[in-house]
Amino acid sequence: MKENWKPGNMLYPLPAVLVSCAHGGRDNLLTVAWTGTVCSDPPMLFISVRPERFSYSLIRDSGEFTVNLTTAAMARATDFCGVRSGADMDKWKEAGLTRLPGVAVVCPAVAESPVSLECKVRSETPLGTHNMFVAEVVNVIVDTSLKDASTGRFHLEKAGLMNYSHGQYFCQGRPLGSFGFSVKKKK
Amino acid sequence: MKENWKPGNMLYPLPAVLVSCAHGGRDNLLTVAWTGTVCSDPPMLFISVRPERFSYSLIRDSGEFTVNLTTAAMARATDFCGVRSGADMDKWKEAGLTRLPGVAVVCPAVAESPVSLECKVRSETPLGTHNMFVAEVVNVIVDTSLKDASTGRFHLEKAGLMNYSHGQYFCQGRPLGSFGFSVKKKK
Repeated sequence: MKENWKPGNMLYPLPAVLVSCAHGGRDNLLTVAWTGTVCSDPPMLFISVRPERFSYSLIRDSGEFTVNLTTAAMARATDFCGVRSGADMDKWKEAGLTRLPGVAVVCPAVAESPVSLECKVRSETPLGTHNMFVAEVVNVIVDTSLKDASTGRFHLEKAGLMNYSHGQYFCQGRPLGSFGFSVKKKK
Repeated sequence: MKENWKPGNMLYPLPAVLVSCAHGGRDNLLTVAWTGTVCSDPPMLFISVRPERFSYSLIRDSGEFTVNLTTAAMARATDFCGVRSGADMDKWKEAGLTRLPGVAVVCPAVAESPVSLECKVRSETPLGTHNMFVAEVVNVIVDTSLKDASTGRFHLEKAGLMNYSHGQYFCQGRPLGSFGFSVKKKK
Protein backbone atom coordinates (compact mmCIF):
# COMPACT_ATOMS: atom_id res chain seq x y z
CA MET A 1 0.00 0.00 0.00
CA LYS A 2 1.22 3.48 -0.87
CA GLU A 3 0.33 6.94 0.37
CA ASN A 4 1.31 10.43 -0.72
CA TRP A 5 3.05 12.92 1.52
CA LYS A 6 3.61 16.60 1.06
CA PRO A 7 7.00 17.42 -0.53
CA GLY A 8 9.96 16.85 1.80
CA ASN A 9 13.54 15.63 2.14
CA MET A 10 13.46 11.85 2.17
CA LEU A 11 16.52 11.03 0.09
CA TYR A 12 18.55 8.67 2.31
CA PRO A 13 21.05 7.33 3.32
CA LEU A 14 23.41 10.29 2.99
CA PRO A 15 26.98 10.83 4.13
CA ALA A 16 27.45 12.95 7.28
CA VAL A 17 30.74 14.74 6.71
CA LEU A 18 32.77 17.20 8.73
CA VAL A 19 33.42 20.31 6.64
CA SER A 20 36.45 22.29 7.78
CA CYS A 21 36.94 25.91 6.76
CA ALA A 22 39.09 28.92 7.65
CA HIS A 23 39.31 32.64 6.92
CA GLY A 24 40.87 35.71 8.53
CA GLY A 25 42.55 33.82 11.35
CA ARG A 26 39.45 31.81 12.34
CA ASP A 27 38.66 28.23 11.46
CA ASN A 28 35.69 26.00 12.13
CA LEU A 29 34.03 22.61 11.64
CA LEU A 30 30.51 22.08 10.33
CA THR A 31 28.61 18.81 10.00
CA VAL A 32 26.86 18.49 6.65
CA ALA A 33 24.57 15.79 5.22
CA TRP A 34 23.46 17.94 2.27
CA THR A 35 26.53 16.95 0.22
CA GLY A 36 27.31 14.69 -2.74
CA THR A 37 29.41 14.15 -5.84
CA VAL A 38 28.14 16.22 -8.78
CA CYS A 39 30.69 15.42 -11.52
CA SER A 40 33.22 12.63 -12.18
CA ASP A 41 35.66 14.63 -14.33
CA PRO A 42 36.56 17.20 -13.26
CA PRO A 43 35.90 15.75 -9.80
CA MET A 44 33.34 18.05 -8.20
CA LEU A 45 31.11 17.94 -5.16
CA PHE A 46 28.66 20.24 -3.44
CA ILE A 47 27.78 21.25 0.08
CA SER A 48 24.65 23.19 1.02
CA VAL A 49 24.94 25.52 4.02
CA ARG A 50 22.48 27.83 5.76
CA PRO A 51 23.78 31.43 5.44
CA GLU A 52 23.17 32.03 9.17
CA ARG A 53 25.74 29.37 10.13
CA PHE A 54 29.08 30.66 11.43
CA SER A 55 30.96 28.60 8.83
CA TYR A 56 29.04 30.10 5.92
CA SER A 57 31.00 33.34 5.69
CA LEU A 58 34.33 31.52 6.24
CA ILE A 59 33.57 29.40 3.16
CA ARG A 60 32.15 32.27 1.09
CA ASP A 61 35.04 34.63 1.89
CA SER A 62 37.86 32.09 1.50
CA GLY A 63 36.36 30.19 -1.46
CA GLU A 64 37.72 26.98 0.05
CA PHE A 65 36.69 24.13 2.33
CA THR A 66 37.63 20.52 3.07
CA VAL A 67 35.18 17.61 3.23
CA ASN A 68 36.30 15.07 5.85
CA LEU A 69 34.63 11.63 5.80
CA THR A 70 33.42 10.31 9.14
CA THR A 71 33.45 6.91 10.79
CA ALA A 72 31.48 5.14 13.52
CA ALA A 73 34.30 6.10 15.94
CA MET A 74 33.66 9.76 15.06
CA ALA A 75 29.87 9.63 15.53
CA ARG A 76 29.81 11.68 18.73
CA ALA A 77 32.22 14.34 17.43
CA THR A 78 30.30 14.56 14.14
CA ASP A 79 26.96 15.01 15.87
CA PHE A 80 28.45 17.57 18.26
CA CYS A 81 29.80 19.68 15.37
CA GLY A 82 26.32 19.62 13.83
CA VAL A 83 24.41 20.94 16.82
CA ARG A 84 26.84 23.48 18.35
CA SER A 85 28.07 26.77 16.87
CA GLY A 86 31.77 27.53 16.47
CA ALA A 87 31.13 31.26 16.89
CA ASP A 88 32.21 31.10 20.53
CA MET A 89 34.10 27.83 20.96
CA ASP A 90 36.95 25.86 19.44
CA LYS A 91 35.02 22.89 18.07
CA TRP A 92 38.21 20.95 17.37
CA LYS A 93 39.09 21.04 21.05
CA GLU A 94 35.55 20.44 22.30
CA ALA A 95 34.98 17.51 19.94
CA GLY A 96 38.44 16.01 20.43
CA LEU A 97 39.51 16.40 16.80
CA THR A 98 42.98 17.25 15.48
CA ARG A 99 43.93 19.85 12.87
CA LEU A 100 45.98 18.51 9.97
CA PRO A 101 47.62 21.30 7.92
CA GLY A 102 45.97 21.93 4.53
CA VAL A 103 47.93 20.97 1.40
CA ALA A 104 46.18 22.63 -1.56
CA VAL A 105 43.93 24.86 0.55
CA VAL A 106 44.61 27.05 3.60
CA CYS A 107 42.06 25.45 5.94
CA PRO A 108 43.11 22.44 8.03
CA ALA A 109 41.74 18.93 7.47
CA VAL A 110 40.59 16.56 10.23
CA ALA A 111 43.42 14.15 11.11
CA GLU A 112 40.99 11.49 12.41
CA SER A 113 39.22 11.24 9.00
CA PRO A 114 40.19 8.35 6.71
CA VAL A 115 39.74 10.60 3.65
CA SER A 116 39.75 14.39 3.31
CA LEU A 117 38.78 16.17 0.08
CA GLU A 118 40.28 19.64 -0.33
CA CYS A 119 37.96 21.80 -2.43
CA LYS A 120 37.83 25.16 -4.18
CA VAL A 121 34.43 26.80 -4.67
CA ARG A 122 33.37 27.22 -8.32
CA SER A 123 29.84 28.59 -7.79
CA GLU A 124 27.35 29.51 -5.09
CA THR A 125 23.58 29.32 -5.62
CA PRO A 126 20.96 30.48 -3.10
CA LEU A 127 18.07 27.97 -3.16
CA GLY A 128 15.95 28.85 -0.11
CA THR A 129 17.00 27.81 3.39
CA HIS A 130 20.38 26.71 2.00
CA ASN A 131 23.03 28.08 -0.35
CA MET A 132 24.66 25.44 -2.54
CA PHE A 133 28.42 25.64 -3.02
CA VAL A 134 29.61 23.61 -6.02
CA ALA A 135 33.35 23.00 -5.72
CA GLU A 136 36.18 21.23 -7.45
CA VAL A 137 38.25 18.66 -5.55
CA VAL A 138 41.86 19.86 -5.78
CA ASN A 139 43.60 17.36 -3.47
CA VAL A 140 42.72 14.14 -1.66
CA ILE A 141 44.36 13.24 1.68
CA VAL A 142 44.05 9.58 2.65
CA ASP A 143 45.06 7.57 5.68
CA THR A 144 47.72 5.07 4.61
CA SER A 145 46.60 2.58 7.27
CA LEU A 146 43.77 1.63 4.86
CA LYS A 147 46.22 0.78 2.08
CA ASP A 148 47.29 -2.79 1.51
CA ALA A 149 51.09 -2.59 1.61
CA SER A 150 51.57 -5.41 -0.90
CA THR A 151 48.85 -4.60 -3.48
CA GLY A 152 48.59 -0.83 -2.96
CA ARG A 153 44.82 -1.20 -2.95
CA PHE A 154 42.87 1.24 -0.79
CA HIS A 155 40.34 -0.52 1.44
CA LEU A 156 37.81 2.20 2.20
CA GLU A 157 35.39 -0.53 3.31
CA LYS A 158 37.59 -1.07 6.39
CA ALA A 159 37.22 2.55 7.53
CA GLY A 160 33.81 1.97 9.18
CA LEU A 161 32.18 4.90 7.37
CA MET A 162 29.05 6.32 8.89
CA ASN A 163 25.85 7.33 7.11
CA TYR A 164 22.88 9.48 8.07
CA SER A 165 19.30 8.52 7.41
CA HIS A 166 16.10 10.27 8.52
CA GLY A 167 17.53 11.64 11.78
CA GLN A 168 19.77 8.71 12.72
CA TYR A 169 23.44 7.83 12.23
CA PHE A 170 24.28 4.29 11.11
CA CYS A 171 27.50 2.38 10.61
CA GLN A 172 28.25 0.58 7.36
CA GLY A 173 26.55 -2.82 7.03
CA ARG A 174 27.62 -5.94 5.17
CA PRO A 175 28.65 -5.73 1.50
CA LEU A 176 25.97 -6.70 -1.04
CA GLY A 177 28.10 -6.82 -4.19
CA SER A 178 30.46 -4.79 -6.34
CA PHE A 179 29.40 -2.47 -9.16
CA GLY A 180 28.50 -4.69 -12.14
CA PHE A 181 27.89 -7.88 -10.11
CA SER A 182 24.40 -8.35 -11.59
CA VAL A 183 25.76 -8.98 -15.11
CA LYS A 184 29.08 -10.65 -14.22
CA LYS A 185 29.48 -14.03 -15.88
CA LYS A 186 30.12 -16.91 -13.53
CA LYS A 187 33.48 -18.59 -14.08
CA MET B 1 50.27 8.45 8.29
CA LYS B 2 48.75 10.45 5.45
CA GLU B 3 49.42 10.67 1.74
CA ASN B 4 48.11 12.94 -1.01
CA TRP B 5 46.29 11.66 -4.07
CA LYS B 6 45.42 13.45 -7.24
CA PRO B 7 41.90 14.94 -7.22
CA GLY B 8 39.12 12.33 -7.45
CA ASN B 9 35.69 11.29 -6.25
CA MET B 10 36.05 9.84 -2.77
CA LEU B 11 32.96 11.20 -1.06
CA TYR B 12 31.25 8.10 0.39
CA PRO B 13 28.92 6.48 1.36
CA LEU B 14 26.32 7.72 -1.11
CA PRO B 15 22.78 6.60 -1.87
CA ALA B 16 22.31 4.45 -4.99
CA VAL B 17 18.87 5.39 -6.26
CA LEU B 18 16.76 4.28 -9.20
CA VAL B 19 15.75 7.33 -11.21
CA SER B 20 12.65 6.79 -13.33
CA CYS B 21 11.82 9.06 -16.25
CA ALA B 22 9.51 9.21 -19.26
CA HIS B 23 8.95 11.27 -22.39
CA GLY B 24 7.25 10.84 -25.76
CA GLY B 25 5.86 7.39 -25.02
CA ARG B 26 9.15 5.95 -23.69
CA ASP B 27 10.18 5.46 -20.11
CA ASN B 28 13.35 4.24 -18.46
CA LEU B 29 15.23 3.55 -15.24
CA LEU B 30 18.70 4.84 -14.43
CA THR B 31 20.84 4.06 -11.38
CA VAL B 32 22.44 7.16 -9.90
CA ALA B 33 24.85 7.64 -6.99
CA TRP B 34 25.62 11.26 -7.89
CA THR B 35 22.55 12.52 -6.04
CA GLY B 36 21.79 14.34 -2.80
CA THR B 37 19.58 16.84 -1.00
CA VAL B 38 20.52 20.44 -1.85
CA CYS B 39 17.91 22.44 0.09
CA SER B 40 15.57 21.80 3.03
CA ASP B 41 12.89 24.35 2.14
CA PRO B 42 11.82 24.26 -0.59
CA PRO B 43 12.77 20.57 -0.59
CA MET B 44 15.23 20.18 -3.46
CA LEU B 45 17.62 17.50 -4.65
CA PHE B 46 19.95 16.98 -7.56
CA ILE B 47 20.94 14.18 -9.88
CA SER B 48 23.97 14.30 -12.19
CA VAL B 49 23.65 12.40 -15.48
CA ARG B 50 26.02 11.85 -18.41
CA PRO B 51 24.42 13.41 -21.53
CA GLU B 52 25.18 10.25 -23.54
CA ARG B 53 22.88 8.16 -21.32
CA PHE B 54 19.53 7.18 -22.84
CA SER B 55 17.68 8.64 -19.85
CA TYR B 56 19.32 12.04 -20.21
CA SER B 57 17.09 13.34 -23.01
CA LEU B 58 13.97 11.87 -21.38
CA ILE B 59 14.72 13.97 -18.28
CA ARG B 60 15.79 17.08 -20.19
CA ASP B 61 12.78 17.01 -22.52
CA SER B 62 10.14 16.17 -19.89
CA GLY B 63 11.62 18.31 -17.08
CA GLU B 64 10.61 15.59 -14.63
CA PHE B 65 11.95 12.51 -12.91
CA THR B 66 11.36 10.37 -9.83
CA VAL B 67 14.04 9.32 -7.33
CA ASN B 68 13.25 5.86 -5.94
CA LEU B 69 15.17 4.74 -2.83
CA THR B 70 16.67 1.25 -2.97
CA THR B 71 16.99 -1.56 -0.44
CA ALA B 72 19.24 -4.60 0.03
CA ALA B 73 16.50 -6.69 -1.62
CA MET B 74 16.78 -4.45 -4.70
CA ALA B 75 20.59 -4.62 -4.97
CA ARG B 76 20.67 -6.81 -8.08
CA ALA B 77 18.00 -4.79 -9.92
CA THR B 78 19.71 -1.52 -8.96
CA ASP B 79 23.10 -2.67 -10.21
CA PHE B 80 21.54 -4.03 -13.42
CA CYS B 81 19.88 -0.67 -14.19
CA GLY B 82 23.26 1.01 -13.72
CA VAL B 83 25.22 -1.12 -16.18
CA ARG B 84 22.69 -1.74 -18.97
CA SER B 85 21.13 0.77 -21.38
CA GLY B 86 17.38 1.15 -21.72
CA ALA B 87 17.73 2.20 -25.37
CA ASP B 88 16.87 -1.30 -26.56
CA MET B 89 15.27 -3.06 -23.60
CA ASP B 90 12.50 -2.64 -21.05
CA LYS B 91 14.57 -2.36 -17.89
CA TRP B 92 11.52 -2.68 -15.67
CA LYS B 93 10.81 -6.11 -17.11
CA GLU B 94 14.45 -7.22 -17.23
CA ALA B 95 15.14 -6.10 -13.65
CA GLY B 96 11.83 -7.40 -12.28
CA LEU B 97 10.53 -4.00 -11.19
CA THR B 98 6.95 -2.74 -11.28
CA ARG B 99 5.65 0.58 -12.63
CA LEU B 100 3.57 2.59 -10.18
CA PRO B 101 1.61 5.41 -11.87
CA GLY B 102 3.02 8.89 -11.25
CA VAL B 103 0.99 11.26 -9.07
CA ALA B 104 2.44 14.77 -9.56
CA VAL B 105 4.60 13.83 -12.55
CA VAL B 106 3.92 11.81 -15.68
CA CYS B 107 6.71 9.24 -15.24
CA PRO B 108 6.02 6.09 -13.22
CA ALA B 109 7.62 5.39 -9.84
CA VAL B 110 9.10 2.04 -8.76
CA ALA B 111 6.52 0.10 -6.72
CA GLU B 112 9.23 -1.91 -4.90
CA SER B 113 10.83 1.25 -3.46
CA PRO B 114 9.96 2.20 0.13
CA VAL B 115 10.07 5.91 -0.80
CA SER B 116 9.75 7.67 -4.17
CA LEU B 117 10.40 11.39 -4.62
CA GLU B 118 8.62 12.96 -7.58
CA CYS B 119 10.63 15.90 -8.89
CA LYS B 120 10.41 18.80 -11.33
CA VAL B 121 13.63 20.14 -12.83
CA ARG B 122 14.46 23.74 -11.88
CA SER B 123 17.92 24.05 -13.51
CA GLU B 124 20.44 22.10 -15.54
CA THR B 125 24.20 22.82 -15.35
CA PRO B 126 26.85 21.15 -17.53
CA LEU B 127 29.93 20.50 -15.35
CA GLY B 128 32.12 18.19 -17.45
CA THR B 129 31.33 14.48 -17.76
CA HIS B 130 27.99 15.08 -16.03
CA ASN B 131 25.12 17.56 -16.24
CA MET B 132 23.60 18.43 -12.89
CA PHE B 133 19.80 18.66 -12.71
CA VAL B 134 18.62 20.56 -9.63
CA ALA B 135 14.96 19.75 -8.98
CA GLU B 136 12.19 20.45 -6.54
CA VAL B 137 10.43 17.57 -4.79
CA VAL B 138 6.73 17.94 -5.62
CA ASN B 139 5.33 14.74 -4.10
CA VAL B 140 6.55 11.90 -1.87
CA ILE B 141 5.15 8.38 -2.24
CA VAL B 142 5.81 6.11 0.75
CA ASP B 143 5.11 2.49 1.51
CA THR B 144 2.61 2.32 4.36
CA SER B 145 4.06 -0.99 5.59
CA LEU B 146 6.83 1.11 7.23
CA LYS B 147 4.31 3.16 9.21
CA ASP B 148 3.50 2.24 12.77
CA ALA B 149 -0.30 1.93 12.76
CA SER B 150 -0.68 3.13 16.36
CA THR B 151 1.80 6.05 16.45
CA GLY B 152 1.80 7.01 12.76
CA ARG B 153 5.60 7.15 12.88
CA PHE B 154 7.45 6.24 9.70
CA HIS B 155 10.23 3.71 10.34
CA LEU B 156 12.57 4.25 7.40
CA GLU B 157 15.27 2.38 9.37
CA LYS B 158 13.28 -0.85 8.80
CA ALA B 159 13.42 -0.52 5.01
CA GLY B 160 16.95 -1.98 4.73
CA LEU B 161 18.23 0.95 2.65
CA MET B 162 21.33 0.31 0.57
CA ASN B 163 24.33 2.59 0.16
CA TYR B 164 27.17 2.77 -2.34
CA SER B 165 30.80 3.28 -1.39
CA HIS B 166 33.89 3.17 -3.60
CA GLY B 167 32.54 0.57 -6.04
CA GLN B 168 30.57 -1.57 -3.57
CA TYR B 169 26.98 -1.74 -2.37
CA PHE B 170 26.35 -2.11 1.37
CA CYS B 171 23.27 -2.61 3.49
CA GLN B 172 22.51 -0.36 6.44
CA GLY B 173 24.44 -1.22 9.59
CA ARG B 174 23.52 -0.77 13.25
CA PRO B 175 22.28 2.62 14.52
CA LEU B 176 24.88 4.81 16.23
CA GLY B 177 22.63 7.50 17.66
CA SER B 178 20.00 10.07 16.72
CA PHE B 179 20.73 13.63 15.61
CA GLY B 180 21.64 15.60 18.74
CA PHE B 181 22.59 12.56 20.87
CA SER B 182 26.02 14.02 21.69
CA VAL B 183 24.54 16.92 23.69
CA LYS B 184 21.43 15.24 25.07
CA LYS B 185 21.19 15.49 28.83
CA LYS B 186 20.88 12.19 30.67
CA LYS B 187 17.63 11.84 32.60
